[in-house]
Amino acid sequence: MRTMAELNCPLPIRSKNTILLGHGSGGRLSSELLQDVFLRELGNPILSKLEDQAIVPIGSQRVAISTDSFVVKPLFFPGGDIGSLAVNGTVNDLAMCGATPLYLSAAFILEEGLSRETLCRVVHSMREAAEVARVQVVTGDTKVVERGKGDQLFSNTTGLGVVAQGLDLSAAHARCGDKVILSGSIGDHGIAILAQREGLEFESAISSDCAALHGLVTEMLRVSRGIRCMRDPTRGGLSSTLHEIAVQSGVAIEIEEREIPVHEDVKGACELLGLDPLYVANEGKLVAIAAPEEADEILSAMRRHPLGREACIIGRVRDDRVGLVTMRTRLGTSRIVDILAGDQLPRIC
Amino acid sequence: MRTMAELNCPLPIRSKNTILLGHGSGGRLSSELLQDVFLRELGNPILSKLEDQAIVPIGSQRVAISTDSFVVKPLFFPGGDIGSLAVNGTVNDLAMCGATPLYLSAAFILEEGLSRETLCRVVHSMREAAEVARVQVVTGDTKVVERGKGDQLFSNTTGLGVVAQGLDLSAAHARCGDKVILSGSIGDHGIAILAQREGLEFESAISSDCAALHGLVTEMLRVSRGIRCMRDPTRGGLSSTLHEIAVQSGVAIEIEEREIPVHEDVKGACELLGLDPLYVANEGKLVAIAAPEEADEILSAMRRHPLGREACIIGRVRDDRVGLVTMRTRLGTSRIVDILAGDQLPRIC
Repeated sequence: MRTMAELNCPLPIRSKNTILLGHGSGGRLSSELLQDVFLRELGNPILSKLEDQAIVPIGSQRVAISTDSFVVKPLFFPGGDIGSLAVNGTVNDLAMCGATPLYLSAAFILEEGLSRETLCRVVHSMREAAEVARVQVVTGDTKVVERGKGDQLFSNTTGLGVVAQGLDLSAAHARCGDKVILSGSIGDHGIAILAQREGLEFESAISSDCAALHGLVTEMLRVSRGIRCMRDPTRGGLSSTLHEIAVQSGVAIEIEEREIPVHEDVKGACELLGLDPLYVANEGKLVAIAAPEEADEILSAMRRHPLGREACIIGRVRDDRVGLVTMRTRLGTSRIVDILAGDQLPRIC
Repeated sequence: MRTMAELNCPLPIRSKNTILLGHGSGGRLSSELLQDVFLRELGNPILSKLEDQAIVPIGSQRVAISTDSFVVKPLFFPGGDIGSLAVNGTVNDLAMCGATPLYLSAAFILEEGLSRETLCRVVHSMREAAEVARVQVVTGDTKVVERGKGDQLFSNTTGLGVVAQGLDLSAAHARCGDKVILSGSIGDHGIAILAQREGLEFESAISSDCAALHGLVTEMLRVSRGIRCMRDPTRGGLSSTLHEIAVQSGVAIEIEEREIPVHEDVKGACELLGLDPLYVANEGKLVAIAAPEEADEILSAMRRHPLGREACIIGRVRDDRVGLVTMRTRLGTSRIVDILAGDQLPRIC
C-alpha cells in the first residue's frame, strides 16, 4: 500500500526507492536509472557511449551487438505483433550504426497457461520478419514462469551485425548547421497499440509502422558519407531521440512543427487522447543528422525507398542552447520540447 | 479453472494446447516444444544443431553466440543470485564449445514496485561475476511491466566469444568407447535454490555451485584434442544432458552410480524431498565426452583446477542401445535413466 505522502510526492523523489513504469519509458526516468544503476556498476568505454548498439572488435571485423526485451501489450496489433517487433526492433538498432544485420538470438519467457497457438503465431511471425530482413535466428532459449508471474509472453532478441571499416556514426557527432532528417510520419506504432489495447475505434484503422530499416540505411549510406548519426525514435518518441543527440553532441536542435509528418488519423487520435505525437513511439522510422550540403541528396535517396517516401528535413542543429530541443510551432512561436518525464504509454514495445 | 478431465489427463495430451511449467524444465516437454514450434518455424543448419551456442562465421573468425533468460526464484540464494547466474550461465554456454567468452549483453524486465536496492544488488553482482569471468557487458536494455505482470526481475544475457580454428566440439561427436567425465558433485544448485525457496533448513548450508567454467575448459583443451563434446548439466540435470548427447550422437551412455559425486548434504536433502540428484540442476559443472586414451590426462588437468578438484570418470559410451542412458547402481543392477518428463523444480535458473 502506498501512503498518501508517497502518492503526493513528485515523481523524482518517489522513484528513488522503487521502480516505476516510467523507468521503462525511454524518457527521463529511464535515463536516470541507466546512469545511476547500470552505468555506475557496469560502465566501460563501450557501454558508456550510450548508443543503441555496441561495436566491438572481433578479429579484423567491427561487430555490432544490440539487445532488446519485448513486453508489448497486446501481443498482436494492427501492422505487427511481438514476433515481428522483436526482429525489426533489434535489426533497427543494428542498422542505426550502419551495420549489416546478420544473426539474431531469440529468447522467450512464457507464462504457464499460454495457448500454444499464440506461441506458434508469434514464432511464425518472427520467422517471416527474419526472412524479410534477411537475418538468421541462430540460437534461443525458453523459460516458463507460473501463472500470474508473467504476462503471456515476453521475448528478447539480441542481434549481431558487421560495420564497414571507417564508418563512425554516433549521437555525439551532430554539429552546428547540420540538418535533421526524419524518414516519415510519427506516432503510428504507439497509437496503433493504444487503440488496440483500449478497444478504441478510429475512423480508419491505424497500423503500426513496424519495419526493418537497414535497406533504407544502405541506400542513404550509398549516396553520402555526410551522415553523422542515425537513431530510431522508439520508446519516448522523437522528442527523446532528439534530446539524446542534443545532449551527447553538446548542441541544440530546432525543429519545425509544420515539417513533421503526422498522419491525419494519428493526429486526431492524439488530440482525442491528449497525447503529443512527439512523445509517441515509432517502430519503423529513423532520424538522421546530416551535413547540410549532403542533406538533399540523402533525402532524395530516402524518398526512392518504400520506407522513406515521406522523408523530410524537419530541423537543424544549432549551438546556442546546448542540450535543448526547441520547436517552432505553426503559429510562429518557439517552445521547448522537454524530455518525457514519467510514462506516457507503458509496454509499447 | 481446469476441469477434472483436464486434471486427470496425462501430461503429453494436456500439453498439446497449453504451455506448462514443464516446458521450461529442460526435459522431454522442453525438447518437444523446441522441435514442434521453434525448429519447425525457425530451423536452419545452425539452429538445428541444437548445441548450447551457435557458431557463426564473421570475417575470418568463428564467433560463438549464446542466449539465456533467467527467471530464478528467489533472486538471491546461497552461493549466488540472478546477477551472477546470468553472467556465469551464458559464459558457460559459450565455454562448452571451447569459445573464449568476450562480450555480454544484459537485458532486464522489471516489475513495477521492485525495490531499487534489489536491482542495485543484482547489477552489482553481475559486475563482480563479469570481472571474475573477464567479460565485458557492452550493451543492455530495461523494460518495466505493471505490478502483478512479472515477478520482481527477469534478466537475459547474450554472450559472444571466439572459437579457435579447427576446434569442433559437438554433442553429436560421442563415439563408442569414449569416457564420460564429470567435473564435480551434482545437485548443489538445485537443492540450494529449493532450500532457500521453501525455507528448509539443512544441517549444513548448501550453496549453489554457480561459477564460470571457461578457465577449467582452457586447461582441458590445453592438454588434449581428444575432447569430443562438453555440456553443462543445468536445467534437467545430468540425466537430460547425457540424453541429449546419446540421442544426438546415436550412441548409448552407461554411467556408474558409485562414481557420481554427490555431497552428503545434497544426498540427504534429495532423500528427504524425494528427488533424484541426476535430475537436479547444476550451474558450475560440466560433462565431457573424451577419447578413452586421453581421459586420464584430461582428468588430471581438471583436478589441478579449483573448479575440477572432484572431477572423475563416471561412465562410458556404448553402441548397443542407441539413444539410451543406463546406470549401474550400487547394488550392481542396471537401470534406465529416463529423461525428465514433467517438471521437477521450476524456475531454477
